[in-house]
Amino acid sequence: MKISLGKKTLLYPAPVCVVGTYDHAGKPNVMTAAWAGICCSSPPCIAVSLRKATYTYGNILERKAFTVSLPSEEYIHQADYFGMASGRDEDKFARTRLTPVKGELVDAPFVKEFPLALECSLHSSVQIGLHTEFIGEILDVKAEESCVGPDGLPDIEKIRPLLFSPEGRKYHGVGKFLGSAFQMGRMI
Amino acid sequence: MKISLGKKTLLYPAPVCVVGTYDHAGKPNVMTAAWAGICCSSPPCIAVSLRKATYTYGNILERKAFTVSLPSEEYIHQADYFGMASGRDEDKFARTRLTPVKGELVDAPFVKEFPLALECSLHSSVQIGLHTEFIGEILDVKAEESCVGPDGLPDIEKIRPLLFSPEGRKYHGVGKFLGSAFQMGRMI
Repeated sequence: MKISLGKKTLLYPAPVCVVGTYDHAGKPNVMTAAWAGICCSSPPCIAVSLRKATYTYGNILERKAFTVSLPSEEYIHQADYFGMASGRDEDKFARTRLTPVKGELVDAPFVKEFPLALECSLHSSVQIGLHTEFIGEILDVKAEESCVGPDGLPDIEKIRPLLFSPEGRKYHGVGKFLGSAFQMGRMI
Repeated sequence: MKISLGKKTLLYPAPVCVVGTYDHAGKPNVMTAAWAGICCSSPPCIAVSLRKATYTYGNILERKAFTVSLPSEEYIHQADYFGMASGRDEDKFARTRLTPVKGELVDAPFVKEFPLALECSLHSSVQIGLHTEFIGEILDVKAEESCVGPDGLPDIEKIRPLLFSPEGRKYHGVGKFLGSAFQMGRMI
């Protein structure tokens, strides 16, 4: 039997996206966002929702660009910290000793040590409520060579991204392979 | 070292969202979408991106409502099938012998057998490119009682949602618990 839990932002899993930007002085900054997802195949776009109060919000509007770096499990402490501190008060790269790398195609930095990075130019923004959704056109994806499989695509088992559970605020890892999409359904 | 993979919709993991709607004749339909994510905390909203060609697209515009049901691992075949067939040609509920339940608050059905369901009223839509993003305000979340923990929240280890890897088109399960958000970062 189902019970009613009310108006809650419950979706499992949410991704753990580390959004990279430069501020007005050129200081690289990162923040962690879980309200995110791919939102269009052509042009390839990703949507990331941020509160106006974040430092990143103004940076994106100024530079019209951001990156999304995906931390692997081993960087769980750094990724969590990126969602707790503000770039207004702290230099998060310096504190974590991680390395900002300027995007090749956009005016925003990604995290060198994380296995995957998306370079995005600001496509549009949508003011929803507490959060504003920034839609970024993905101009390039960069992946650690060691995480790319023989098919030329990143392997989720090598990337080992974090999963986030909203409200309960928990992180999980990726579990076992269950099957291939557009094949399992043929058995119905 | 990072290598460039080009303009691709790569984000890990993507969720597996089964979008429920009624068509003009009142027939319940479901389709699977991976381009989705929470996009606002207040009001609580979820964004789901669909191609205009889908049957669900017109249904949402007509009824101004949809649901998102999350399949657990055991329903992987049904969830995959829901992304392969079109409600224009087939009665997907009849074929899978799953049960449509009319939303309590919105004019759209959810899947009774799946552990979690979000009832959403259409908040707005954003035409991006090949995909249109439908932003739904979450009016209620319904969860199987057996999946709700002592904190009154669904437990991802009991929900056992599917993870989707874009491009490589693979499904994985949820792995082990790694830590609590807003706590791990304090160790930095």
